[in-house]
Formats: sequence, structure tokens, C-alpha cells
Amino acid sequence: MSQRTVRHLLGIEGLSKEGALSILETARAFWEMNRRPVKKAPTLRGKTLINVFFENSTRTRTSFELAGKRLSADVVNINVAQSSAKKGETLRDTISTLDAMAPDLIVIRHASSGAPHYLAKRTNAAVINAGDGLHEHPTQALLDAFTIRQHKPSFANLKVLICGDISHSRVARSNILLLSLLGAEVRIAGPRTLLPRDAETLGARVFHDFNAALAGVDVVMTLRIQQERLLNALLPNTREYSRTFGLDASRLALAAPDAIVMHPGPLNRGVEISDQVADGPQSVVLQQVEAGVAVRMAVLYLYAPGGVDAELPTPAD
Amino acid sequence: MSQRTVRHLLGIEGLSKEGALSILETARAFWEMNRRPVKKAPTLRGKTLINVFFENSTRTRTSFELAGKRLSADVVNINVAQSSAKKGETLRDTISTLDAMAPDLIVIRHASSGAPHYLAKRTNAAVINAGDGLHEHPTQALLDAFTIRQHKPSFANLKVLICGDISHSRVARSNILLLSLLGAEVRIAGPRTLLPRDAETLGARVFHDFNAALAGVDVVMTLRIQQERLLNALLPNTREYSRTFGLDASRLALAAPDAIVMHPGPLNRGVEISDQVADGPQSVVLQQVEAGVAVRMAVLYLYAPGGVDAELPTPAD
Amino acid sequence: MSQRTVRHLLGIEGLSKEGALSILETARAFWEMNRRPVKKAPTLRGKTLINVFFENSTRTRTSFELAGKRLSADVVNINVAQSSAKKGETLRDTISTLDAMAPDLIVIRHASSGAPHYLAKRTNAAVINAGDGLHEHPTQALLDAFTIRQHKPSFANLKVLICGDISHSRVARSNILLLSLLGAEVRIAGPRTLLPRDAETLGARVFHDFNAALAGVDVVMTLRIQQERLLNALLPNTREYSRTFGLDASRLALAAPDAIVMHPGPLNRGVEISDQVADGPQSVVLQQVEAGVAVRMAVLYLYAPGGVDAELPTPAD
Repeated sequence: MSQRTVRHLLGIEGLSKEGALSILETARAFWEMNRRPVKKAPTLRGKTLINVFFENSTRTRTSFELAGKRLSADVVNINVAQSSAKKGETLRDTISTLDAMAPDLIVIRHASSGAPHYLAKRTNAAVINAGDGLHEHPTQALLDAFTIRQHKPSFANLKVLICGDISHSRVARSNILLLSLLGAEVRIAGPRTLLPRDAETLGARVFHDFNAALAGVDVVMTLRIQQERLLNALLPNTREYSRTFGLDASRLALAAPDAIVMHPGPLNRGVEISDQVADGPQSVVLQQVEAGVAVRMAVLYLYAPGGVDAELPTPAD
Repeated sequence: MSQRTVRHLLGIEGLSKEGALSILETARAFWEMNRRPVKKAPTLRGKTLINVFFENSTRTRTSFELAGKRLSADVVNINVAQSSAKKGETLRDTISTLDAMAPDLIVIRHASSGAPHYLAKRTNAAVINAGDGLHEHPTQALLDAFTIRQHKPSFANLKVLICGDISHSRVARSNILLLSLLGAEVRIAGPRTLLPRDAETLGARVFHDFNAALAGVDVVMTLRIQQERLLNALLPNTREYSRTFGLDASRLALAAPDAIVMHPGPLNRGVEISDQVADGPQSVVLQQVEAGVAVRMAVLYLYAPGGVDAELPTPAD
Repeated sequence: MSQRTVRHLLGIEGLSKEGALSILETARAFWEMNRRPVKKAPTLRGKTLINVFFENSTRTRTSFELAGKRLSADVVNINVAQSSAKKGETLRDTISTLDAMAPDLIVIRHASSGAPHYLAKRTNAAVINAGDGLHEHPTQALLDAFTIRQHKPSFANLKVLICGDISHSRVARSNILLLSLLGAEVRIAGPRTLLPRDAETLGARVFHDFNAALAGVDVVMTLRIQQERLLNALLPNTREYSRTFGLDASRLALAAPDAIVMHPGPLNRGVEISDQVADGPQSVVLQQVEAGVAVRMAVLYLYAPGGVDAELPTPAD
């Protein structure tokens, strides 16, 4: 077991441009397979995937679970909110115990930034970060890039605006890193209380005026406003947020005419996005969800350690 | 995806007699398969079944889960009580998100009548209603009909009595519709506060005297009394209910000598049914559970969109 | 269905020495398979395994779930804390309902001693006890024996010390029975309030002085101290427990130089075991977890009723 070299997907940080493009390429084959009557490949037969979620997320867990099952892996879900962790077991012991069951892949979501890195040092499995604290959510950024690629010819010269609670968003962080890596120009906008100090270092241009930020962009990505930010007094109220940073049809008109609208979900309709925009022709929100399963299949396929020699489904198959 | 015609099983309403009989016929093959050492058919290989339960129901969820797995589908369970719906996501967005993951079949249970119909308009998957509010529970009625058919030569001239809280029972509603469709005479009995005003329109004969209702019937189906009806003051107390509408041996003697006793479970022993009757030779309660898996396999098989060309297991296989 | 003879694994009590050794032998083949790139055997294809847990246990449930899936069974998990049992259904009716779905194997954990025996009388499935009250946890004892066997040439003349809350431990009880059966000398140690009166009858030598008990033993197994024992006033506090019965490096030095240290998990670090010992070279705690999956695969393989004719994976395969 120990002689194999295992690669992990812990974040966009550490991923090369070639690595990212390879995931997007591979995902294309699975995306097509998922539209066929028979959505099944024997790729991960005999491999074990453990989805261990220390935070609830039906959406992401279901996406990874489906990805694993369509690749024929044995998939086990562990919701740690209901488990031994409540008995006072340390994260380290929980992790060691899972590792001893010989999973090939562990998908982890955890409220603490860095938990997947901690896990990666203590397991023979390939670790896939499904969201860690305020840090990263790499498969979300990859599925967003996949979706953009379906609509835009190239990342070069592409203007992408991410709007919302950037400071507390691992989705924003991973997207800024990936889109910059792929050559896009990234803008961020939001209330001053919700913008990180190091945004420019991450490679994003900072706007405090949503309208100015929107001018001519090709992609508008709005983020979910969390209720807890209101309780923290980082936001006055949702009506005020909606007035200044909500994406409605008149604001969207400031972007390029063929701009696409993205959102990682779940939507707060009427807060960060209007019904008209969410359900309008420029919205690709559901395409993001579809891309999510395909991208996660690609990630599981590419990161599964050893012994995967099955071919990808062919476009004509 | 869009060119295919998808059929849904939203209720007994809308089902033809031929459609219902075809499900019962198909279920027979799966019922036999489920009694063999190897209970597995490749029928739904590469198909995705999502069980999305907005109300808890271990019994029905397990039955559908087993049905899907024995047909080789990829099965994912979603308990929405623990999911994004709690984050304030609308039903519409939850549904659109699931649909974007390209399931072939969605089994839904929801506290609101009509939720499956709402879903059916917004997905490419075939929707199977696993119980919606006070409306319908079609697979329960189908498994009941399957069980009756194992004991009675014909639905014509068959007298079936359903007793209990008819007003609040989707099981009763679906059964009245299906049994009438199949040609049986349906009687209902229960306290006045728990009988619907439109029972006669549904095709059932209404009785307020349990003993009179029982006279000569071939099938007695008792329903579970819900504790909340007592709180609502629709029922005095369970002892009083048991005295007037509980099925015990002396009452059962009023039915035909070969009458069978049914109950959708879980049982309130000593309330709507006595131990002696529940465990007696005329009870087919557990046969109903067994029929449930077979009928759900038939429904999944018949409603799965496109690409199912596997043959049914043959009786001699 | 009724003509087949079904064997159950309800406890170590009732198991012959040959039966136990046969499970350990069979587990060896699965242990090796679990270290290969493809961890999958078609052994239980078409068989249904229901894991029904009336007490939460992520660790044991996951181990059985993986065991079943790697053997190609259809696996369904039921967490009864969230199910019909809450609606007032009797254990008997819950069990009859599960049985009617035609599982081949039922793995049960229940807070009441004897629940698996009760179940075994009411199902055609093979019943595997995954822990019942204060009674038995046979697969834990078997995985412990498997682990000991990987380190020690023979059970004859082997000295094994089990330390902790013996009175309330089904793990201790099953281990005392199995290790005695296999020919080892079993010692137990712990506070007087936590030792059973019948320990000697079970075949164990009782010590109240931990240091004396440790002298020259080949295996030290420490048990988890439950918080509820403190509330029950059966234990003064964890610091006091740690001082008198905690296993640290200086105490471990009293055992044989090549003694191994075991713990069923989850660990209370700093209470019954020190970090240094838990993570030290003599600890086999994680090997126990690994053995757990293999032993459970062997148990499922050997106890599955009828129709399993697949061969075991060969060592050279």
C-alpha cells in the first residue's frame, strides 16, 4: 500500500493549469455519458469511496455519491454529525479509523479550514476536498469552469464578476484561484464588511460599486448570503443587501449582452438574485448542477489510486 | 432528453384498468424472483433512482430502495428533513437541482397534496408518488390489490371494507379508486368525524355501524389511527375507538368465513386491530409488505424512461 | 424458504471452537483481498443485507456496510432511531416487516440484551448480532482474535488482560468467551464497581490491582470508559480512573516485552489509554479496524443462507 504515490485534490492552490484542464477534458466524456440512457461505467469497480461529511450538504454529498455509483465504486456515506465524533473521538482517530477500512477515495467536508490536508497526511486514500471552512471548495470551482467553457470560447480575456460575501466564501476563493489560473480576469464586488483584505493578492480586482463592476462582464456569479452574517451584524438586512448587491434584470443589462449568470446554490430568491434572472435565459444555474456530477466523476477517475485501467466512455459509445 | 415521452405514477386517478392490471401482472414475476436465492435483475443497470422523502418513512423508503437495488439501479436516498430545504430553498429549486443530476426515476413522499404533480412538470425523470398529503399513495393501493388477487379469484363481486380515519388517509383514497376501477364493491366505515363528505362520489358505500358494514365482506382493511386526531379532538380516545371500530375476532366473524384482513402498517395493536386478528390465520399484513417490494419493482420497471430492454425474469428461471 | 436451515451468529456462546477458527481462516482470504487494488467479490450478488441499528454506531455500521458491498450484496441501512419505532410500532412488528422484504442477512444492534435472539426466531434471514445491550458483540471478539493471531503463534498459553468497565461491556463478555474457547488465559481488571460477580464463571481471573494483572501478559485490551458510569456514581472521575487503571508506558512495561495493546474504540485518550501507548509500536488498534471488515465479510459469507457457491478469493489471485 505504501509504495504507491497518491495525489489529493485539496484545493485549486497546488493544481497546475494542465491539471485543471485535464479534469475539464475528462469531465466532458462523463457529461456526455450522463445524458445517455445507460449512465454507468465500470471504471471504479472494486474501489471504495467514503463520503465523510462533518457539515450537512445534501446537494454536494448527493453529487459525489452519484458520481461514485455511476463509476461502479462501493460508496459509503458517513454523516459525522450523527456519529462517534459526538462521543468525543478526536478528528485524528476518526480519520485513522476510516483509513483502516482501506478506502481508495475519501471525500471530506469539514467546518475547519485545512481538515482535508490534515486527513491527507494520515491516509493511503486519495482525499478530495468537498469544502473546508472558509478555505476552498475545488470541485465547485471546477464545475463552474466547466460550465463557463460550455458557453465561452476561451478563458483568455474573459471577464468574470463574483459578487457577495467573498470573505466567508470558499466557493469564491477557489473560483478566484482557478479562473485566474485559466487566464480570466476576475472581479469581485460586495459590501466592504464582506470583502477580504487580500483580494488583490488572490488576483481579483475589487469593486465596491456593483454597477461599475458589472460593466461589460461575460460571467456574473452571485453568492448565497448566509443568515448568520446578519446576526453577526456584518450585514444590515436582506432588503438593504438586495437593493445594493441583488442581481436583477436591470443590473444584468449592464453586463455583456451574452453574459451568463451563475450561482452555487441554494438560491436566496429575492435577496442576492431576482426570480426573473434566476429563471431567465442567461441563467446557467442548473447546468452547474449537471456539470457537478460530471466533474466529480472526472476527479474520482483521475485521483483514484492504482489499478484504474478502464477506458473513458467514448463520445460515440 | 426532451423528445422522450415520460409517464408518471402520480395516483390511481389517471391510471386505466389495463394499466393497473399490467402492473399487477409484472409484479408477479418480481414476486417470484424475490423468493429465489438470487434476487437480482439487470433491468435498471445504469439508471438512477432518487428517493426523496420530505416525510420520514422507513418502511416505504426501504421498500423502494430494495426494489431499485434488486433491479440494479443506482439508488440515492435524500431525507429532506435534514437537507437544503432547511436552508430555505424552495421546493421548486430543490426539484430542479435533483432533475439536473439526471435521475431516471424520482420517488417522492411529501406532506403536501399535489407535490408529485408539481415535480412531474419540472423533471425529465419519471415521478412515482410515494404518498402526498391527504391525496394518494398509489403503490400502496397496488400492493393491496396484488395481495387481494393472491387470495381471491376475481375483483368482480368482491366486497371490500375499509375502516378507520378515511378523511385523512391517502391509503384509503387510493384504494377506493383502484378497487372500484378493478370492479370491486368498496364500503367504508368509521366515526362521522373521520369520514369524507365525498365518499359516495369516490364510489364507496358509507357505513357508520361497523358491524353492519362487516356483514359478508371478503376483505377487511383497517387503517392506522393517528395520535394527532386525538389531539385535534376528532376522536374521543383510543379505548372508545377500539370499542366501536376496533377489529377483533368476534367482529371478524361477521365477515365472510374466508375473508382476509389487511392493514398498511404500522399497527396500533389493541386500537384499530386486536393481537388475535393481526396475528391470526386471516391476516395478510406481512404478505402486503412482501407484495410491496414486488409491486414497486414492477412500477420502476414499467415507468423507467427509455432504454430498458431487459426481459422480465421468467417464472421458470 | 422454510425448508432451508439458517444459522445465526448471535453470540460467541453457542459457537464451537471449529466454527470460530473457520471464521478466522475465511477472514484471512478477505483480509488479503481488501489490500488489493480491486476489493470486490461476486459472492453475495443477489443477496440482500439489512443493517438495522437501534443504537447509533457509525464505526460498526460502516464496517458491515463495506463488508456487504465488497461482497456485492444489496445493502440497506435502517437507523431505527429515526423510524417507525418512534410511531409506537412494536419490535416484533418492525422485525416481521423487515423479514417480509426477504433479506438474506440481518445485522442488528439493539440496546436490549437478547434482541437478536428474539429476531432470529421471527425471520428466515441469518441474523448477525452487532451488539446487544450488555450481552454480546461477537464480531468484535472475532476481529480481536483475528488481530491477536496475526501477532501471536498460538492461543494456547497466551495471557490476555482485559481492563475497564467489564460489567457493562458486551465486548469484554464476548472476548472472555472466545479467548477461553480458543485456549487463552483471560484476566480481567477494573474498579470493583465495574467488575461482574460471575467473572470467574465466565472463565476469567479477576484482578483489582492493575499492576499485578499486567505482569507478563501477551495482550492488553483496554475498554472505553462511558461518561454515563460517572453520572451513575459507579466511577469517581476520569482522572482517578486514569491514575488507577489508565494504560501508560510505565504500566505497559510490566507486560511481556512483545505484548500488543488493543482497544475496541473510540478511544478516550488520556483516560483509559495514554497517547503514547495508543500511538506506540505495540498498539494494534487500527489493525483491529482493518480486521473488522475482513471478519465481517467472512461472517456474511459463511452465514448467508443457500445459493452461495462462489469461491473465496485465492491468496494468489
